[in-house]
Amino acid sequence: MPRHTLYHDALTEDSTEALISGDEAKHALRVKRIRDGDEVGVLNGRGLGGMAIARTRGRDLLLEIREIGMQERVQPQIDVWTATPKGPRSGEMIDALSQVGAFGWSPLATSRANVDPSSARVDRLARVAMEAAKQSARAWLLEIGGAHSFEEALDGAGGGGVVLADASGEAYDATGAEEIRLLIGPEGGWTNDELSAARDAGVRIARFGPHVMRIETAAPTACAIVIDAEQRLRAT
Amino acid sequence: MPRHTLYHDALTEDSTEALISGDEAKHALRVKRIRDGDEVGVLNGRGLGGMAIARTRGRDLLLEIREIGMQERVQPQIDVWTATPKGPRSGEMIDALSQVGAFGWSPLATSRANVDPSSARVDRLARVAMEAAKQSARAWLLEIGGAHSFEEALDGAGGGGVVLADASGEAYDATGAEEIRLLIGPEGGWTNDELSAARDAGVRIARFGPHVMRIETAAPTACAIVIDAEQRLRAT
Repeated sequence: MPRHTLYHDALTEDSTEALISGDEAKHALRVKRIRDGDEVGVLNGRGLGGMAIARTRGRDLLLEIREIGMQERVQPQIDVWTATPKGPRSGEMIDALSQVGAFGWSPLATSRANVDPSSARVDRLARVAMEAAKQSARAWLLEIGGAHSFEEALDGAGGGGVVLADASGEAYDATGAEEIRLLIGPEGGWTNDELSAARDAGVRIARFGPHVMRIETAAPTACAIVIDAEQRLRAT
Repeated sequence: MPRHTLYHDALTEDSTEALISGDEAKHALRVKRIRDGDEVGVLNGRGLGGMAIARTRGRDLLLEIREIGMQERVQPQIDVWTATPKGPRSGEMIDALSQVGAFGWSPLATSRANVDPSSARVDRLARVAMEAAKQSARAWLLEIGGAHSFEEALDGAGGGGVVLADASGEAYDATGAEEIRLLIGPEGGWTNDELSAARDAGVRIARFGPHVMRIETAAPTACAIVIDAEQRLRAT
């Protein structure tokens, strides 16, 4: 594991070199103190990742690619839809969701919370997802989706691929599903109407811990437990 | 679930009233806007928790206790020993560990990190644990322990009650242990010497996700997965 990973959108499987400039190079040189000859990671955010030797070229960095290949996406693909935490907590949540291996995140409107993030905030969250990908050498960026209604969240739940986190549920049972939509409610919890509608639609209700959690803790925790349970099922 | 919970150290099982003053009352009145007649939670941090009706008494709050009882501790008791994250991240970690249900936390010295928090910082972390307990209605405070060496971390590992998080391990297997010590390494990872020593001592090595995680994400994630797996084993 190299001690720093760089993002390079134009990276392809045939790349032998990559020229990093601008903020990305500045950060690597000044903050991460990458020096000529250091081994670094490189990724394009769409599955391609590799190792390279860094060469300093003034304010730029030239990467000599030594190894490159497609990383598999984490299985199953967990798309996490949540009420949006306030202020900096949405960034903390995206960061943690990236680290635990979520496929994507979308803001979810619920009866008790309707925080539809502004486009400026969505841009900021996408930057957090990129920094998190570099930090954990994750070649696929976490996808930031558009806002959804609660009705949309229940859509297609009959197949067992929609899971809602609530203290009224049992422990999560792995099913082997390849794609799972995981719903995390607002601080005040789901309303009884929402819980009934979810049950009627065939949503699986699961509990992911003994205590009440804030959104930015509940989302990565539930996602990590689902991935762990599903991967264990696949290993047996 | 009341929308605010108060800490009262002197609470006993026979308490019928509790007078809250100072910062705790100020925070409840000014920030949480608790009003005369509101239902609130109350806990003593040592397992006792209940519900009360708040009565305003000038700058104080008088709680009329309506319900009180001992909460069971979360089983199994997970004591999480970690390299100490830098700056505010140690507080974020304690907050998340409280929410997911860890028993306690201790700083762990490792070859690649030796961050022994100052006593001022330990006091701050204890305050974070108290706020987190109130937020998630957790009647037992997370215990903040003293610093330990890596040798101490391996002590007694033969019984299977010591688990070390590392990408080289398999998925966590529940054992039914009542007390588990969970070891989380520094950003640079464990050294090969540490991993060998752990294996020789009978420590179980487990992996808790597909990507590299920072300490403050890895610790609550691993703890939540262990609690989930152990509680599922007990339910079958």
